Amino acid sequence: MSRIWTTRRDEKARRIKSIAHLTQNAILNKENIIEAMEALIQPGDRVVLEGDNQKQASFLSESLLQVNASKVNNLHMIMSSVSRPEHLDIFEKGIAKKIDFSFSGPQSLRVSQMIEDGTLEIGEIHTYLELYGRLFIDLIPNVALVAADKADRFGNLYTGPNTEETPAIVEATAFKDGIVIVQVNEIVDELPRIDIPASWVDFVVEADQPYQLEALFTRDPKLISELHILIGMMTIRGVYEKHQVKSLNHGIGFNTAAIELLLPTYAESLGLKGKIAKNWVLNPHPTLIPAIESGWVDTVHCFGGEVGMEAYCAARPDVFFTGKDGSLRSNRAFAQVAGQYAIDMFVGSTLQMDMRANSSTVVSGRLAGFGGAPNMGHDPKGRRHSSEAWLDLITSDDPLSKGRKLVVQTVETFQNGNTPVFVESLDAIEVAKQAHLATAPVMIYGDDVTHVVTEEGVAYIYKAEGEEERKQALSAVAGVTSVGSKADAAVISSLRERGIVAYPEDLGIHRNQANRSLLAAKNVRDLVEWSDGLYNPPAKFKNW
Amino acid sequence: MSRIWTTRRDEKARRIKSIAHLTQNAILNKENIIEAMEALIQPGDRVVLEGDNQKQASFLSESLLQVNASKVNNLHMIMSSVSRPEHLDIFEKGIAKKIDFSFSGPQSLRVSQMIEDGTLEIGEIHTYLELYGRLFIDLIPNVALVAADKADRFGNLYTGPNTEETPAIVEATAFKDGIVIVQVNEIVDELPRIDIPASWVDFVVEADQPYQLEALFTRDPKLISELHILIGMMTIRGVYEKHQVKSLNHGIGFNTAAIELLLPTYAESLGLKGKIAKNWVLNPHPTLIPAIESGWVDTVHCFGGEVGMEAYCAARPDVFFTGKDGSLRSNRAFAQVAGQYAIDMFVGSTLQMDMRANSSTVVSGRLAGFGGAPNMGHDPKGRRHSSEAWLDLITSDDPLSKGRKLVVQTVETFQNGNTPVFVESLDAIEVAKQAHLATAPVMIYGDDVTHVVTEEGVAYIYKAEGEEERKQALSAVAGVTSVGSKADAAVISSLRERGIVAYPEDLGIHRNQANRSLLAAKNVRDLVEWSDGLYNPPAKFKNW
Repeated sequence: MSRIWTTRRDEKARRIKSIAHLTQNAILNKENIIEAMEALIQPGDRVVLEGDNQKQASFLSESLLQVNASKVNNLHMIMSSVSRPEHLDIFEKGIAKKIDFSFSGPQSLRVSQMIEDGTLEIGEIHTYLELYGRLFIDLIPNVALVAADKADRFGNLYTGPNTEETPAIVEATAFKDGIVIVQVNEIVDELPRIDIPASWVDFVVEADQPYQLEALFTRDPKLISELHILIGMMTIRGVYEKHQVKSLNHGIGFNTAAIELLLPTYAESLGLKGKIAKNWVLNPHPTLIPAIESGWVDTVHCFGGEVGMEAYCAARPDVFFTGKDGSLRSNRAFAQVAGQYAIDMFVGSTLQMDMRANSSTVVSGRLAGFGGAPNMGHDPKGRRHSSEAWLDLITSDDPLSKGRKLVVQTVETFQNGNTPVFVESLDAIEVAKQAHLATAPVMIYGDDVTHVVTEEGVAYIYKAEGEEERKQALSAVAGVTSVGSKADAAVISSLRERGIVAYPEDLGIHRNQANRSLLAAKNVRDLVEWSDGLYNPPAKFKNW
Repeated sequence: MSRIWTTRRDEKARRIKSIAHLTQNAILNKENIIEAMEALIQPGDRVVLEGDNQKQASFLSESLLQVNASKVNNLHMIMSSVSRPEHLDIFEKGIAKKIDFSFSGPQSLRVSQMIEDGTLEIGEIHTYLELYGRLFIDLIPNVALVAADKADRFGNLYTGPNTEETPAIVEATAFKDGIVIVQVNEIVDELPRIDIPASWVDFVVEADQPYQLEALFTRDPKLISELHILIGMMTIRGVYEKHQVKSLNHGIGFNTAAIELLLPTYAESLGLKGKIAKNWVLNPHPTLIPAIESGWVDTVHCFGGEVGMEAYCAARPDVFFTGKDGSLRSNRAFAQVAGQYAIDMFVGSTLQMDMRANSSTVVSGRLAGFGGAPNMGHDPKGRRHSSEAWLDLITSDDPLSKGRKLVVQTVETFQNGNTPVFVESLDAIEVAKQAHLATAPVMIYGDDVTHVVTEEGVAYIYKAEGEEERKQALSAVAGVTSVGSKADAAVISSLRERGIVAYPEDLGIHRNQANRSLLAAKNVRDLVEWSDGLYNPPAKFKNW
């Protein structure tokens, strides 16, 4: 008895043949999608559903919810982002059973509840790149359900500005005899460019409406406060300038939006243009427009697109990556690789930080996941190339010592509603117990953090010697939280002298300088003007 | 004066137009390649030359050597692998000036000499994934010179089993208005499958002979010694079995080849089949054939192909990733991501290891680079998912503690010629000074290593408490090297009791068991037989 080595391929052929009556080459009619799914997806399958950060295969997820659960059940779902109600409804209906994911921001409360109720079984929570890696090792998909802008009649795909993670998912599925089903907004005769070749695609279906796309990286400058601006100014002087940071990523948030809008004003007044913040890996943040237009930004590689930024990016190909058709090419997998390995600095924010600088956005009752932060917010130990900023963080004279990536956390000491950010112990520890996770869901570990910036000052914790001194440096910038009240005046004074803590005055900043008049754009309309009318914000950001 | 935002695109169009008389759509005749290169490549350009591990764009590198250095000069070369003489000849002719690379094994001696002579300026040395990341940030290419198996007349590419890093290089170049020139073995009317779409390609040239392809991952079982087998047995019992390692990568070497050939024999006798070593990220090692045929291996994702393994991989699609045409699809970028983030264990080897377990293959006078080892041979701090093996390495009861990737170094205490592997200080420190590198070229840092296995025993250095105990654990397995002579019998005895060191007898292994009769294949011919004649080894491995 010789073993058969083509079971996956044979099974794929069988399933495809079983819906031959529904297809014309690669094209499936939307009316037949549920019948097709019931044949193409089998109980227990591993199914990757595209759920990116911004782009959602919304027609396919809605259709999956409508399959007959006696035919399709116990699926093991793999999703970067749990974003839409039906992403969880499929578990309540028994269509799906287990999930491996990265981020569940909008659904984090419900995820927690469903785990408690036993309707959802968690595999693991991942950072994006880690999840893509597992698609080639121990989470190889049987089926991929993804979204693209356009397809031609052969099944070639155009993903336009929102390529995101589609190629990574499709590659892992297509080249292991999985079935790739793509919803497109439109089937056309000729594509502007080909992002994914038809050889990798099994079925294309024109959806009833365009895939869901969220403007996740748009921050309205009118919501930037003077605290954000103060933190931004200290970060520019105390981190960007001090370490000569050239290449970087910014997380989502008003702290970093403030920095982007301070580059052409405050940072320009310091003579920093051309010296810092030149090469970016970043979604197309609208708040970066003034810096781009002022000549601050050499290049930006994007994880995904951003609603309304399409025409602007297309008109700035010296800065953005674009295809032969002229529109943006994003790529989440490569942007995450670059964000991990090729930049000087990651700047993020958090909801909770403990006294060892461990931080998490997982707070009581919410299992939010991680997104890309763990990947970019750590010192990649495989890195071997140096840069000025990276070398500047060497604190030892060991002949084998090496530099470090800057991992900067910018936080206000209190969140809205008087909730302190600095806490004795992370909620994540309790959440791990409740959700039966093997380890606590920490977003960024304290030993990876190099700088913490609050409205009180900058803690250069990479310089602190020993755990006790790290705690004191953190306390020194933790304000009137219970952690901050542990700060000792004499110790703080010594830390400031040794450059381990800097207060605004140590950086030559007066608190009353931190004024909204420093922002290069004060509202979304200003951003549109800076862009010469090329930026077209979504309606919810237009109030003029 | 408004800024022009299309300078790269305009310059690309100008260059392409200047050779309009030489081209027919995307096709360039090989007779015109030098004239075309002199127009398409300009002084000071950043040029990525494919130089993978196995696949070389040899026709294009030979052609580059023939351009007129008064027209094309001072190039900044970016190459994964410096493998061929002309990769360095171009520096001697002044065509190129600076290089960023990952690996220079075959040319490492000459690289060192040329740096000393001032004919070669080193940018940085990288692990592969890090270099790909920089292609999107601060090493964006102007021109890419790559290799594929076949193209059609539109410029679509078939890379066959040797996709390797071609898509990563092409993406970074094509989507930033760089020029992509591809040598192919053959231009055909219809491709077996499309690996890279024509939208990403500017010019295709049919080379005078197929691109160079080296069988780098083939190890002849007849060269496996009883020491290799002893080390292999201890690694299987003391690491794979002990920690229940399911997913893994093996570096190149006879130690790991021995392990591959012991799985269907020794490991099978231990009842480990189906429990360990199921999911691999690995080039198609011929020495893995017996384990695959015996049902040990569930899946293998490949960095690249391996000469002679094409038909075998194509016949085992349940195990290997293959395309619709049936042949292997490799992908170095995704395999490196998986090898970093998604596996339980990396097993490597080294030429030198110091008392803190730092190791390097950079030895006196040779600047060999790193390849993929630093990326896979460290604990990725962005990892958030757990596995049985990963959790098994937790040594703390801190509620925020997490698991660790296993990073295992298997070495004989002496290399050929009585050169000790264990040394007081790495040659890399001196090499860094001579080559004016910012940091010493360490391959794997000691604090990333969890286990060291020699013919003496296994050191579980992740369990050692403090630097002094780590040193003693290493000394205990360092044999009669000067490092080994520091071992203290009483300390060793205590380390063995505490499970920090294990000698063969502690693992239930008798040294005289380590016999070549345990190898599932004793020579290359045996491998061919195991493969049912599907493996077709290169001539140099055929001696029957």
